[in-house]
Amino acid sequence: MSTQQALTGSIITASPDLGLLLDPIKDELEQVEKFLNSNLVDDSPFIEELLGQVFRSGGKRIRPALVLLTSKASSTPRGRVGRLHIILSVLTELIHTASLVHDDVLDSASLRRGQETVNRKFSDKLAVLTGDLLFAQASVCLSRLMNPVIVGIYGQVLGDLCAGEIRQMRQQFVVSTDWDAYIQKSVWKTASLFAAGTQSAPILNLCTDNVIGDMKAYGLNLGICFQIVDDLLDVTGNSLALGKAAGSDLTHGVITAPAMFVLERNDSAAQKLTRLIKTKDVTTEAGVAEALEIIRSNGGIEATVDLARQYARRAREALTSLQPSQYRDSLDSLIDWLLTRTT
Amino acid sequence: MSTQQALTGSIITASPDLGLLLDPIKDELEQVEKFLNSNLVDDSPFIEELLGQVFRSGGKRIRPALVLLTSKASSTPRGRVGRLHIILSVLTELIHTASLVHDDVLDSASLRRGQETVNRKFSDKLAVLTGDLLFAQASVCLSRLMNPVIVGIYGQVLGDLCAGEIRQMRQQFVVSTDWDAYIQKSVWKTASLFAAGTQSAPILNLCTDNVIGDMKAYGLNLGICFQIVDDLLDVTGNSLALGKAAGSDLTHGVITAPAMFVLERNDSAAQKLTRLIKTKDVTTEAGVAEALEIIRSNGGIEATVDLARQYARRAREALTSLQPSQYRDSLDSLIDWLLTRTT
Repeated sequence: MSTQQALTGSIITASPDLGLLLDPIKDELEQVEKFLNSNLVDDSPFIEELLGQVFRSGGKRIRPALVLLTSKASSTPRGRVGRLHIILSVLTELIHTASLVHDDVLDSASLRRGQETVNRKFSDKLAVLTGDLLFAQASVCLSRLMNPVIVGIYGQVLGDLCAGEIRQMRQQFVVSTDWDAYIQKSVWKTASLFAAGTQSAPILNLCTDNVIGDMKAYGLNLGICFQIVDDLLDVTGNSLALGKAAGSDLTHGVITAPAMFVLERNDSAAQKLTRLIKTKDVTTEAGVAEALEIIRSNGGIEATVDLARQYARRAREALTSLQPSQYRDSLDSLIDWLLTRTT
Repeated sequence: MSTQQALTGSIITASPDLGLLLDPIKDELEQVEKFLNSNLVDDSPFIEELLGQVFRSGGKRIRPALVLLTSKASSTPRGRVGRLHIILSVLTELIHTASLVHDDVLDSASLRRGQETVNRKFSDKLAVLTGDLLFAQASVCLSRLMNPVIVGIYGQVLGDLCAGEIRQMRQQFVVSTDWDAYIQKSVWKTASLFAAGTQSAPILNLCTDNVIGDMKAYGLNLGICFQIVDDLLDVTGNSLALGKAAGSDLTHGVITAPAMFVLERNDSAAQKLTRLIKTKDVTTEAGVAEALEIIRSNGGIEATVDLARQYARRAREALTSLQPSQYRDSLDSLIDWLLTRTT
């Protein structure tokens, strides 16, 4: 079985079409796109160019889609969303984009989504400022919601994003199989923002605490699942599709689920992988290729798929309290899409 | 007349004692200090150490003091401040500190307040994250105020800080005497945050729009004055007291008021200074020394002092709508202290 088959074949038979499942929020996603490409804080042509560069490079807009779908799935009457939901969508993507721009500085990355990064095209300095500017724009959006509870939720997310990065940075090349720490880091880095979006949408809709709690659980588990699949794609994916080199986590000494499953085996594969990491051989082309091969041929892929499926199941369970609707169906299909995505 | 005499002597005869004028808010400043040294977002010992390093290096805490004094001067009964004012104070300093930490990365600075910078002691990467973390902490504080108007004001400030830095970066080594642009940059870089603090304090106190507007004008003009004096100290100050090398603005190609007053003269001094900047000779030790000497001996200091005094006067005028109190007296004395400060 090829690694790609392991990823797609063993979970569900066909990958849902992303365009199709986002169809119920097509108009709203267009509004989000327009908002992101308008200039919120400043009217200098240079800053417009800078931000244009960031958003032109695209992205799947999964987070705005999640916000819009949970907004529609939890509104009364079903499907109605207003300006505030669009703004919530936009600010969620702004925070995500800001953190990516800073991450690229931290990783000295030159490619993102197949495009040159801001640090590469301009400079590290300008990338730091661009990230700050995007965070600032998110703050302005946040203030427009006029909802102190949501301000608190997103404030916590900003802290979590930093905590996740700092933790990851300090654990580089440390051989550990601490699963609690791994999941916690996934929450900080990814799931916390997913959950903020899916939780804040029903808050804006004045839903019951029950629905709000379930939507938070949906976002949290989906986010953890998303991060696990991300870590998996770093091992199985090809650099062209991902827009970054395969094995780039390992090259940076970042130990994720596929490696951890091998590392916790008490055998020669575990020992070999440990050595490659501890000696920093994984930073070389030959070393990372050897490490990836060890992971692939010792069950690291399959075990990680299983782990992702556990969180996918929890996300799906959280949807049961929602009334049936095409939006709930899309939230459900999004789980399958996420499990079968290849980029 | 020495440059130092020009700065202090020509404005007022004696510098007010900062400790004395902050005495009416001594207890509250202590609370702010405790708050800053407690860990708001995360309980990791490393992050505690990191933030401890940032705040241990001190700072004059002018912004928290401004918030507390305007809070007390505009409250009913006079002098009463609550927990929200402390939080407003703290978040104002958090934003200031975050922007300093990122500025030090942008400038590759190794000294700040006479102490090693985070980028120097740890790394650029960790400094980017530390700044982000401080911004995140500020957001959490902001949410605790439960006041959407104040969230909006501070969101705008975050954008202004970035706009100011980006403008400055793009104008490096550009010989310009555009005073509107210079003042605008001073607003973005400094005065915007001053004004946010002095304006938000009376907003929390439910003051009239009149008082809120005057307190905003006080903060804005004081902030511009503060930035002008900062630019002046870069020319007149000694590196030991400032904790950074004299002439460091010029070395980075940043053209400020003292240079601009010489540059707009239609004479050989202006020509010489223009040449030193355009050829980037100012980046050398000899070049910056020559440039500083040209500025000092051609009235750059005196004209800048006059400019600072104009904004000081406007700040003082804005205080007249406040009822007399020891807090208003301190806000008034703070203007004098600011004009005579040497660090």
